[in-house]
Amino acid sequence: MLLENSLAFSHSLLSRHVQAGDIVVDATAGNGHDTVFLAQYVGEYGQVYAFDIQEIALQRTQERLQQAKLAKRVQLIHASHADLAEYVPPNIATVMFNFGYLPGGDKQLSTQTHSSLAALQSALKLLAVGGVVSAVLYPGHFAGAAESAAVLQWAQNLPQQAFSVLQYGFINQRNQPPILLVIEKLRCT
Amino acid sequence: MLLENSLAFSHSLLSRHVQAGDIVVDATAGNGHDTVFLAQYVGEYGQVYAFDIQEIALQRTQERLQQAKLAKRVQLIHASHADLAEYVPPNIATVMFNFGYLPGGDKQLSTQTHSSLAALQSALKLLAVGGVVSAVLYPGHFAGAAESAAVLQWAQNLPQQAFSVLQYGFINQRNQPPILLVIEKLRCT
Repeated sequence: MLLENSLAFSHSLLSRHVQAGDIVVDATAGNGHDTVFLAQYVGEYGQVYAFDIQEIALQRTQERLQQAKLAKRVQLIHASHADLAEYVPPNIATVMFNFGYLPGGDKQLSTQTHSSLAALQSALKLLAVGGVVSAVLYPGHFAGAAESAAVLQWAQNLPQQAFSVLQYGFINQRNQPPILLVIEKLRCT
Repeated sequence: MLLENSLAFSHSLLSRHVQAGDIVVDATAGNGHDTVFLAQYVGEYGQVYAFDIQEIALQRTQERLQQAKLAKRVQLIHASHADLAEYVPPNIATVMFNFGYLPGGDKQLSTQTHSSLAALQSALKLLAVGGVVSAVLYPGHFAGAAESAAVLQWAQNLPQQAFSVLQYGFINQRNQPPILLVIEKLRCT
């Protein structure tokens, strides 16, 4: 298949973007897949901050990092990504979001529109110029539909002088597959 | 800039897709940029069919091909892309569309929704399994808005068992930049 799904395309893009030594954020650690991906690309002297409000998610992420021998590059933070700015220094290269609920976890504990928007806004402030935020949205989930609509509306209204907002996704599937948003910071805000 | 615009992303994708020896189509030759691009990738034993209804477009394309020493790989066809199937054999790898009017030409001579949809439908039939159609739409042009809406609606209704339809574009720009559609054929129809 030539066309990558939203998750795979976000990894393709960020594998070209993240450099050795970068400071980056996984705002939704979940099962740790994105955390491990980022830890690989920041190299020995880079740093990943990984957030989750669920202890079980951080445990799974830690296990995955240890298996990959990448735990030293990652700081796990048991807090809401809405509080990003309290833990992360400015001028970061990338913030990854993967909204929705923890796969294999409690589906009631989904990300919430209010804190998701707060976290995205905070992420844009912390980004270096040339940095990118990637966000996978789940319009096909019962809880994800409203959140996705709100995030898309917010993103459409970002000033084009300061940000490029790319939307990537498949449009002919009945169960509304994940949509990828990528926001590139063009200048200081 | 990390994020490519729609035109650049279509070239990135197709440069990974088109193979030496392939038979491919530029359904809207225009000034010949896509024709030259395709001719480079099909190699010495491949074949490009390039369509335009404007003689001036085919002349410009021919000049560009001669400059690039690629004219032997291309058959220029002075006909509507709605009649694709009369000129092109089945099992082709790619059909590229770049809708709208000829840059530097008569803006009244824009592509028309009716023939654009006919051409797209014909292109999907001629594609080999695994083949792709790419189409750049111009929702920000006076004539392109209705055409873009019609093409998007048509594409959203393609059966997901047979086609993946990707939409790629920037969503926070006031002048509605070009949208890229890429349709990958998954099985025989």
